[in-house]
Amino acid sequence: MDYINNYIEENKDRFLEELFGLLRIPSISSVKSHKPDMYKAAEYLKNLLLESGADKATIFETEGNPVTYAEKIIDPKLPTVLVYSHMDVMPVDPIEKWNTEPFEPVVKDGKIWGRGADDDKGQGMMHFKAFELMVKTNTLPCNVKFMIEGEEEIGSPNLGKWAEENKEMLSADVILVSDTAMFGADTPSITAGLRGLAYWQVEVTGPNRDLHSGLFGGAVANPINVLCSMIDQMTDENGKVTIPGFYDDVLEVSAKERELLARAPFNEEEYKKAIDVEELAGEKGFTTTERTGIRPSFDVCGIWGGYTGEGAKTVLPSKAYAKISTRLVPHQDHKKIEKLFKDHFESIAPKSVKVEVSVLHGGQGYVCPIDLPAYQAAEKAYQDVYGKRPVPVRSGGSIPIISTFEQVLGLKSVLMGFGLEADAIHSPNENFPLEQFYRGLKTILLFYKYYAEIAK
Amino acid sequence: MDYINNYIEENKDRFLEELFGLLRIPSISSVKSHKPDMYKAAEYLKNLLLESGADKATIFETEGNPVTYAEKIIDPKLPTVLVYSHMDVMPVDPIEKWNTEPFEPVVKDGKIWGRGADDDKGQGMMHFKAFELMVKTNTLPCNVKFMIEGEEEIGSPNLGKWAEENKEMLSADVILVSDTAMFGADTPSITAGLRGLAYWQVEVTGPNRDLHSGLFGGAVANPINVLCSMIDQMTDENGKVTIPGFYDDVLEVSAKERELLARAPFNEEEYKKAIDVEELAGEKGFTTTERTGIRPSFDVCGIWGGYTGEGAKTVLPSKAYAKISTRLVPHQDHKKIEKLFKDHFESIAPKSVKVEVSVLHGGQGYVCPIDLPAYQAAEKAYQDVYGKRPVPVRSGGSIPIISTFEQVLGLKSVLMGFGLEADAIHSPNENFPLEQFYRGLKTILLFYKYYAEIAK
Repeated sequence: MDYINNYIEENKDRFLEELFGLLRIPSISSVKSHKPDMYKAAEYLKNLLLESGADKATIFETEGNPVTYAEKIIDPKLPTVLVYSHMDVMPVDPIEKWNTEPFEPVVKDGKIWGRGADDDKGQGMMHFKAFELMVKTNTLPCNVKFMIEGEEEIGSPNLGKWAEENKEMLSADVILVSDTAMFGADTPSITAGLRGLAYWQVEVTGPNRDLHSGLFGGAVANPINVLCSMIDQMTDENGKVTIPGFYDDVLEVSAKERELLARAPFNEEEYKKAIDVEELAGEKGFTTTERTGIRPSFDVCGIWGGYTGEGAKTVLPSKAYAKISTRLVPHQDHKKIEKLFKDHFESIAPKSVKVEVSVLHGGQGYVCPIDLPAYQAAEKAYQDVYGKRPVPVRSGGSIPIISTFEQVLGLKSVLMGFGLEADAIHSPNENFPLEQFYRGLKTILLFYKYYAEIAK
Repeated sequence: MDYINNYIEENKDRFLEELFGLLRIPSISSVKSHKPDMYKAAEYLKNLLLESGADKATIFETEGNPVTYAEKIIDPKLPTVLVYSHMDVMPVDPIEKWNTEPFEPVVKDGKIWGRGADDDKGQGMMHFKAFELMVKTNTLPCNVKFMIEGEEEIGSPNLGKWAEENKEMLSADVILVSDTAMFGADTPSITAGLRGLAYWQVEVTGPNRDLHSGLFGGAVANPINVLCSMIDQMTDENGKVTIPGFYDDVLEVSAKERELLARAPFNEEEYKKAIDVEELAGEKGFTTTERTGIRPSFDVCGIWGGYTGEGAKTVLPSKAYAKISTRLVPHQDHKKIEKLFKDHFESIAPKSVKVEVSVLHGGQGYVCPIDLPAYQAAEKAYQDVYGKRPVPVRSGGSIPIISTFEQVLGLKSVLMGFGLEADAIHSPNENFPLEQFYRGLKTILLFYKYYAEIAK
């Protein structure tokens, strides 16, 4: 391991500089005006991968944002690892809650602060620099391909088609992804399952213009009141989703697997304290870990309508809007759920309003078998670096493209995540501990070593 | 009437110029940064009233926005009319829905367009110019006092105290107010009752920061979901407010009065068409006119929380907010209702969130007896100008200060409104028809004539 530690020690300032360069690009995929930043990020990654040792690197156009692809084929007979990562990041609102500028990364208190520090520029960089290390020290044990997309945070709408069109180029033995979290800095875990996602925007229209709430209030349906009522009707008093057919395809997890799941380290008091809530809430009959891992959820991600400025404007508004999402579990089909919700939501609308539902985003769930050779290589690598066998977990998050890869490329993905709960991904003050960055880098290096041995 | 028509004809361009000067001042009282504009408006009105013939005019400071006061005492033995108006206006959001600049008034299609064109700068200006006409033509038959405040749209928080402190200066026989609407351009009506108002802002806090909806969704209460549910619980399936004690003091209107009310012209199909709704909605057992006139209402005036930008951000937000109002009827006490709501809303909050309720605004309802001499003078004046006896109506709107005047000054107010439903007050594209402006001006002139005769 000495050559590894030496190389990291000698190059760590440059590693950080290279990551910071990437973090400074505000590549927010959900905001169209940031499109030029996607190209900047794609170009940056192309050059970075070439300098890191790739034989070739290309920027592919799609109907949406570009994809950066790079590869190094050392011997076609050796196994090939396809690394997936994404260069796009989430929006930064509420911007006023950031303690630093989201796109001016800094190191403070042993952590890298900035949008994308973890998700997924920070985690991606560990792969690029692990690759560099293996190339420069002549220790690369297999072929490596990289695909870094720019639309993960908006549901990868074009990557499936791109993968389909470039199937041969992308041929590999396994996909390696670092875009998830571990239980804790001292409790390694590997995500063996992901929830799917369906995401809608709803628009409720009452009167054709904002009305004076005194003159009309009480006689004309208020679209905010109606929207609140409709949202409230989507779940019942037991925290169950009331959309007819919603649970029909939910994979019921066996009592034995639930028992295993319950062994994962989880401290409810600490969990509540970390997010400062007095009580947790969710579907009756399931634990917190189950509620986020093996059960679907229903969340309003945003709501707006009427007067939201300072003071008291007495208005009966014309419109109310909400962004609504459900997390899905295997085998719920997001396309089916999208339709079930739309039909149901529209069907319960009173005649006093007009309701429009549009699908914004969706993806299937995923399960990775823990006897997969690549999963086992990952397990050994974590064990070496963290001193503990990683726990296989079902994550609540969604990476819709992972199930698409399975369908299109016929490849399983191993989700070697190094994020921590405190990293605040998708939130203000996203960060990534330096220690995780270096431990992750080492774990990835060891993965290649073990995988090459096991896959031989 | 010739001298009236001649004077108006000769001066009408100047009248409009003077109104436009006032409309150009963006005196939005609910937005603190517009404070300097309140002083501009107060100064503008002071000069205007002096030029119009007042003996003296003064700007009074209050703890909030200034009050412009002016008077002309021609004979202490004659009756005195105290004219009330307000110089502040509502915010202009949603700004993108305006067809013209809100603070750049224009005349188009026979109407004045701009924020305050009706409410209440346009309606106030009719009084100032009617006064000028009487002074300049030596036909003023009684003493006149003007008080024009700058906080009506935020509930007149300081005017009651100011009136109390200036009781003697404000002594009069009746208060005259034009800040309401008529049934239609050819259907004059006088507002004989006003609803009261209570207005709150609520804040629901879930986790201490925005969370990833995949990692936490299903296990942590979502403050938007909770807020929607709490709002939904405030009314039942019959459109009744469920706050315990809410209806305790509601003045039940007799069957006979309800029958009279039903005779007022009202065409439900036209009403629905005007606001483009397929169905009306409200408290079961009451007609539309009753729902806005004699029954309280519950409206969410604004709601916001989570991600409201473009695209699909998968967030479980930390906070959700709403601006909630109820319109009250005689004898509901807004202070009592404010507390009832706050207590109830807080009491139904689940332990998984924190809820804060703050009162933003409130005022009592008001009833004007139709046998009041000033009411009868107003009735005759409308009859002369519009050719029809005006209908006494109970308006759904609130002018909280009117009931305060009754308490503090011991004076009834007569609400000679000339607004029309299509004037879009509080909404984008507020306007005021020129014809209403001139007919209103004449009606006010005749009011003075008849009132001086009746009150003799």
